[in-house]
Amino acid sequence: MELFKSTESEVRVYSRAFPVIFNRAKNAHLYTEDGKEYLDFLAGAGSLNYGHNNDTLKKALLEYIEADGVSQGLDLFTTAKHDFMESYKKHILEPRGLNYKMQFTGPTGTNCVEAAMKLARKVKGRTNIISFSNGFHGVTTGAVAATGNEHHRGGVGLPLTGVDFLFYDGYLGEDVDTLKIMDKVLSDSSSGVELPAAVIVEAIQGEGGLNAARAEWLKGLSELCKKHDILLILDDIQAGNGRTGDFFSFEFAGIKPDIVTVSKSLSGYGLPMALVLFKPELDVWASGEHNGTFRGNNMAFVTARTAVETYWKDDAFANEVKAKSDVLAEGLQAICDKYPSEFRLKGRGMMRGISATHADLTGPITKRAFEKGLIIETSGPNDEVIKCLMPLTTSEDDLRLGTKILGECVDEIMQEGVNEAS
Amino acid sequence: MELFKSTESEVRVYSRAFPVIFNRAKNAHLYTEDGKEYLDFLAGAGSLNYGHNNDTLKKALLEYIEADGVSQGLDLFTTAKHDFMESYKKHILEPRGLNYKMQFTGPTGTNCVEAAMKLARKVKGRTNIISFSNGFHGVTTGAVAATGNEHHRGGVGLPLTGVDFLFYDGYLGEDVDTLKIMDKVLSDSSSGVELPAAVIVEAIQGEGGLNAARAEWLKGLSELCKKHDILLILDDIQAGNGRTGDFFSFEFAGIKPDIVTVSKSLSGYGLPMALVLFKPELDVWASGEHNGTFRGNNMAFVTARTAVETYWKDDAFANEVKAKSDVLAEGLQAICDKYPSEFRLKGRGMMRGISATHADLTGPITKRAFEKGLIIETSGPNDEVIKCLMPLTTSEDDLRLGTKILGECVDEIMQEGVNEAS
Amino acid sequence: MELFKSTESEVRVYSRAFPVIFNRAKNAHLYTEDGKEYLDFLAGAGSLNYGHNNDTLKKALLEYIEADGVSQGLDLFTTAKHDFMESYKKHILEPRGLNYKMQFTGPTGTNCVEAAMKLARKVKGRTNIISFSNGFHGVTTGAVAATGNEHHRGGVGLPLTGVDFLFYDGYLGEDVDTLKIMDKVLSDSSSGVELPAAVIVEAIQGEGGLNAARAEWLKGLSELCKKHDILLILDDIQAGNGRTGDFFSFEFAGIKPDIVTVSKSLSGYGLPMALVLFKPELDVWASGEHNGTFRGNNMAFVTARTAVETYWKDDAFANEVKAKSDVLAEGLQAICDKYPSEFRLKGRGMMRGISATHADLTGPITKRAFEKGLIIETSGPNDEVIKCLMPLTTSEDDLRLGTKILGECVDEIMQEGVNEAS
Amino acid sequence: MELFKSTESEVRVYSRAFPVIFNRAKNAHLYTEDGKEYLDFLAGAGSLNYGHNNDTLKKALLEYIEADGVSQGLDLFTTAKHDFMESYKKHILEPRGLNYKMQFTGPTGTNCVEAAMKLARKVKGRTNIISFSNGFHGVTTGAVAATGNEHHRGGVGLPLTGVDFLFYDGYLGEDVDTLKIMDKVLSDSSSGVELPAAVIVEAIQGEGGLNAARAEWLKGLSELCKKHDILLILDDIQAGNGRTGDFFSFEFAGIKPDIVTVSKSLSGYGLPMALVLFKPELDVWASGEHNGTFRGNNMAFVTARTAVETYWKDDAFANEVKAKSDVLAEGLQAICDKYPSEFRLKGRGMMRGISATHADLTGPITKRAFEKGLIIETSGPNDEVIKCLMPLTTSEDDLRLGTKILGECVDEIMQEGVNEAS
Repeated sequence: MELFKSTESEVRVYSRAFPVIFNRAKNAHLYTEDGKEYLDFLAGAGSLNYGHNNDTLKKALLEYIEADGVSQGLDLFTTAKHDFMESYKKHILEPRGLNYKMQFTGPTGTNCVEAAMKLARKVKGRTNIISFSNGFHGVTTGAVAATGNEHHRGGVGLPLTGVDFLFYDGYLGEDVDTLKIMDKVLSDSSSGVELPAAVIVEAIQGEGGLNAARAEWLKGLSELCKKHDILLILDDIQAGNGRTGDFFSFEFAGIKPDIVTVSKSLSGYGLPMALVLFKPELDVWASGEHNGTFRGNNMAFVTARTAVETYWKDDAFANEVKAKSDVLAEGLQAICDKYPSEFRLKGRGMMRGISATHADLTGPITKRAFEKGLIIETSGPNDEVIKCLMPLTTSEDDLRLGTKILGECVDEIMQEGVNEAS
Repeated sequence: MELFKSTESEVRVYSRAFPVIFNRAKNAHLYTEDGKEYLDFLAGAGSLNYGHNNDTLKKALLEYIEADGVSQGLDLFTTAKHDFMESYKKHILEPRGLNYKMQFTGPTGTNCVEAAMKLARKVKGRTNIISFSNGFHGVTTGAVAATGNEHHRGGVGLPLTGVDFLFYDGYLGEDVDTLKIMDKVLSDSSSGVELPAAVIVEAIQGEGGLNAARAEWLKGLSELCKKHDILLILDDIQAGNGRTGDFFSFEFAGIKPDIVTVSKSLSGYGLPMALVLFKPELDVWASGEHNGTFRGNNMAFVTARTAVETYWKDDAFANEVKAKSDVLAEGLQAICDKYPSEFRLKGRGMMRGISATHADLTGPITKRAFEKGLIIETSGPNDEVIKCLMPLTTSEDDLRLGTKILGECVDEIMQEGVNEAS
Repeated sequence: MELFKSTESEVRVYSRAFPVIFNRAKNAHLYTEDGKEYLDFLAGAGSLNYGHNNDTLKKALLEYIEADGVSQGLDLFTTAKHDFMESYKKHILEPRGLNYKMQFTGPTGTNCVEAAMKLARKVKGRTNIISFSNGFHGVTTGAVAATGNEHHRGGVGLPLTGVDFLFYDGYLGEDVDTLKIMDKVLSDSSSGVELPAAVIVEAIQGEGGLNAARAEWLKGLSELCKKHDILLILDDIQAGNGRTGDFFSFEFAGIKPDIVTVSKSLSGYGLPMALVLFKPELDVWASGEHNGTFRGNNMAFVTARTAVETYWKDDAFANEVKAKSDVLAEGLQAICDKYPSEFRLKGRGMMRGISATHADLTGPITKRAFEKGLIIETSGPNDEVIKCLMPLTTSEDDLRLGTKILGECVDEIMQEGVNEAS
Repeated sequence: MELFKSTESEVRVYSRAFPVIFNRAKNAHLYTEDGKEYLDFLAGAGSLNYGHNNDTLKKALLEYIEADGVSQGLDLFTTAKHDFMESYKKHILEPRGLNYKMQFTGPTGTNCVEAAMKLARKVKGRTNIISFSNGFHGVTTGAVAATGNEHHRGGVGLPLTGVDFLFYDGYLGEDVDTLKIMDKVLSDSSSGVELPAAVIVEAIQGEGGLNAARAEWLKGLSELCKKHDILLILDDIQAGNGRTGDFFSFEFAGIKPDIVTVSKSLSGYGLPMALVLFKPELDVWASGEHNGTFRGNNMAFVTARTAVETYWKDDAFANEVKAKSDVLAEGLQAICDKYPSEFRLKGRGMMRGISATHADLTGPITKRAFEKGLIIETSGPNDEVIKCLMPLTTSEDDLRLGTKILGECVDEIMQEGVNEAS
């Protein structure tokens, strides 16, 4: 522990909230060096949808490594890449009527967001991109310009350019139609908001506080983009890969975004991987215009293909996730029902949480939860939302256990008050 | 093959030059699905310094996966991370007198460059950074602003800001002292080049054409930075991890950069990993100011630690690399000696190549080499340099074989002429 | 005329709408070389509030020139500058309880806007500035970033930075409180709109279509700025100098902006002059940090002082302007009453006009007006507003004549239809 | 005096060096309120080439005002504008074989520089512009990006974008060919300096320290621009209007710039006026894309035409200026000869000065000069150059008197030493 404190940069985050050393993990549980077990409602910030060290994926990975399969392949053709692409096309894209080309970028979410923004600007020959209040899209200089959070924006040390912000569904209250404002601004050549190449949006804003856009809002946004000849980039890095019950978070709205960014749980095993999907007519890239050494993480291709073939050949898993979503929602709603003026349910599918009227409550609650063996984080501009991103493979019992622990913590902190607890 | 052509984005590069499907790899060789063997002088663009699927690293990796070690750990404390940090500190940093803190960023080179640039700007409260002609530092928006190449710069679709370019060692010819120009520009408050927070430099410019800075130039640069109160960022992503015979590419110059960026061969197994090293007094990061989901690729920590402990506990490997560098240089020099007006040796250590007076020769030569079973790429502003980045573990016989094949290709293309060959 | 067409740049505007050659002017009238008289409701785009060649000012100007008074004085101390400053302080600032320092910039509106924006950024140490949809503040690169109009923005050839746009009073309809949106955005650290150094606003948007903010909106804006520690820059270039009946356009709202930009009718005789007023504690300028050769246009100081002393020593002129405003408003309202679904009155004071439901009507109407001897222009994002900016010294008879001519033109065009007329 | 100190912004410059109140001026002399006479070697920073209140111009100006000529005409056609254009075309452009269109911008140098840069970017569809170390082009945001001086750049409070700096003639010493460096940088697609739309350059850098480019350098620059398809913008604001003996400062090099910016002494009477000249094929402006209220300063048109017709109908005045240049040079050279290691002659034509080896000498010298009745300023990055910009109409006797006074001051300060004097 001393080594970490003396040698790792102060930039670290999660190890401050959960200051123990983990050495083993399985499905929805993390284990410390001295054998303590934790129920993991964080799950790699949504990058472990199929659980830690999923056995089916693990088997495929071990076989690939043992056989000396190509590990790092740049953008060379490899068997592992071929098989992933084939499976993804057959089981994910085609059944959903999505005709997309695939671009493998450097294996981080922010890198595929950068690629998507570049591509949109190139296609449209415009510099502006519209993002939404409370959106989070990464912290490299291009992506963070589309990220609302001042803490991340300020880290760059340069004014961020090329992105204007408008208002997400519900941002100005339930009675204000934020798309109407957007339409006005885009229709007025003197609004000061230049016609953008693209809009970038999350179907559920994870870091922004589990704000879930309504289907009709997303549909309206898609239509607005078409009306004004703007591309729609759907950032599905956190909300995708089955998190909402559907494979893509935008399916329920019946839209087909022009560009989709995918990462986090894409590899299924926590291995770094990122992918940009876009309509074929947008593929105006020149060879190598956007590159990156690790864009051919073949181990990730292997586990990603296995995840597709294990969980997405039919509806079974999707239905299971939907059922579990209900269990999760019930557990969280129970807390809110007990303190209706203090907490309300947020999110959709298995991307849920409770928002606290008093933001200073959430820190003590999640700290107490950790003491009770539950790892869970906060999000939102003021960290006012307690956010669940557990594996989709978490058992219903563990879902109930987790929300029960959380409920107890809420009870305790409500009783103790913040000052005593923190 | 059809699937790739119809479904993968046109952005792909290497698969155009080497259009076969690989499925297996070992040390310095790649194998196609139909069993053809290739000698690999590309090696993941320098990310496989210890060879494909290095057996020692493979063993450690398999054991870790089998034991359900944490795979994806965000920036939580884990045993694998602890052990890597401990080893790296003990065997790499301390023996070299380098007292650095470590920041794990998203696992790509460009991401750690972004972090380094952000940090420098934050520390100094200035926006400008100086980079060098022909430098390459990545393609996300912050990093590509420090990258000279117009092809990559133009991909962004926005004017790039915050970086001014000056001239690398030798850029203006052997008789021009480019540091003197830099000193003049920095000393003159009306030069138009604002006092930068940092200078970012490679000790050998890989993508820029294997331009190797002299030790005295690097030393002079370091002193110039101190004189003007500027931080020195040494981008060691490609030239580091033993490539030059030393662990860091800057050791031979006796300098201690303020910030060092490390990636590519850091994990040793081609697994995505990136690291920023910096002097402790520069650690002004606020918690989470720069983040990224995959900054805790624990499998990479395991192989990275194993690589350190296998190759860098003593001087044996370093000496072996130096001996092999001579073998490589001899082989390449022989080609140059045969065509003294056409080719000249470039680079340093095992980051070597030959530069062609007529840039149109290099494409046909490397194409012919591929036909003869040798994978090798070009670099430089006009692709005029044939560049060797084979594993440091390549046998001397294979080094001789590779340069022999290359020599034959050169002979053939010189005889055939470019038009016939291409 | 040929010379103009062959030799003057295509950038010219007004000479396209009014293609005659003027050689003489007096109060509210322009005269062509061949003696034709025009009633001037354009008046130098609001830079001739005291009429063309105002006799009192002319006398002072002639005397000054004849006496070899300093004409161009840089920022040297001169008698003319002293006397202007003294008069302006005594008759304009002090009676209104405004304690401002004065900065003389290059003699254009855009230049004093640039100075104001620089100063605000310097004082607050922030880069962002908030401007409003449909705002116009000039076309140099800094000022045009705060100008909404795409035509002007696009002229720069660079993405414009450092300004975010929010919504002017009434922009989103009468039922939407745009200050509430602004408060939300400024209060949310994840809104994507970074805390600005300043807000820049016009009390009446001239180029934007004669949008007149309500007193309570301006007051609310001023309070919002205080709440969030933001400076309020009031751009009074077009609406100031008595145009609204008060000397400053913001007086009616009872606010005291931190910074006020003044130009156009400041000199009173159409002579180029510009001035930034700001609270003494904001005077953090270093000597010469913002300069400009013609910042000491001493002839302008002379006429500006004379204008102050002629018109602003007491309330007589202000009251006269208010009375004339009523005459003007009546004339315009009569047109609107005749075509209630087609036209509505806009603006305030003697900055009035009529907005057409069908924007394509305004061109033919103003063209017809010119044929009938009335010079009047359009404004607004779609040129949908016919805009009156006649001298404040226009006689009531001429006001009635002008609106009568305009009414006839409206009648004719409404009868003829657009196609026939244009 | 108190009023100035309490009420004028701290941004003021010249009144700090020359803290007296002037009220009258004639040719090369300024007079204070209490009758003290000063010889003016500053002359409105080069905006009074024909002297203060030139009698011929004054007569024309008075007549125009008395006749109620249009004073402020926006960009309407007026007789005064027509006559200026006709004279300028006939006596200035045509005899020099220059076929230029004329754009009247807001009447400041910085405004016409902004227009020139915009136009170049629009024509070429590129964002970058190259400027030179020590160049000065104005302080509005677009122009100051092309200005080297950190004091002015820093005033903006935003990183300045869209301009890269290269090296002026002689900047790197007499032995370094700065055009060769420029050619290298422009020829290398990986230099990091993106292909610019234009180069902006002064033939003599005034603010930069009277650096006079050689004819062959300007010629080479012009050819380099053609080679790389770059526009050449010649900023003739300070060095033009006869200052060098030729009307344009670039004539001696035999080049025809694509775009020329003109202001300062253009009106001849110190009245604000600015003009962009460019080749007809570059006139891609849309109507009103760049505008400005005071772009029709008709009084300035009148004096500008009179100046052209008085001084430039034949060679007499040009020859007179050349003769005076010699007188001035002799006087200054005599000082340098006396202190060869301390001072050297700089500049060209009547834009001359002496550069001090020890920059701290110049302040005390010019201060002493002021005490002796001579107004003269310093320039250069460290204010190391004492700079003469007296009227071209200064008598030879006054030229001799001025340099004699300056010589005495130099003697005194050299004797006294800096510490005693300052």
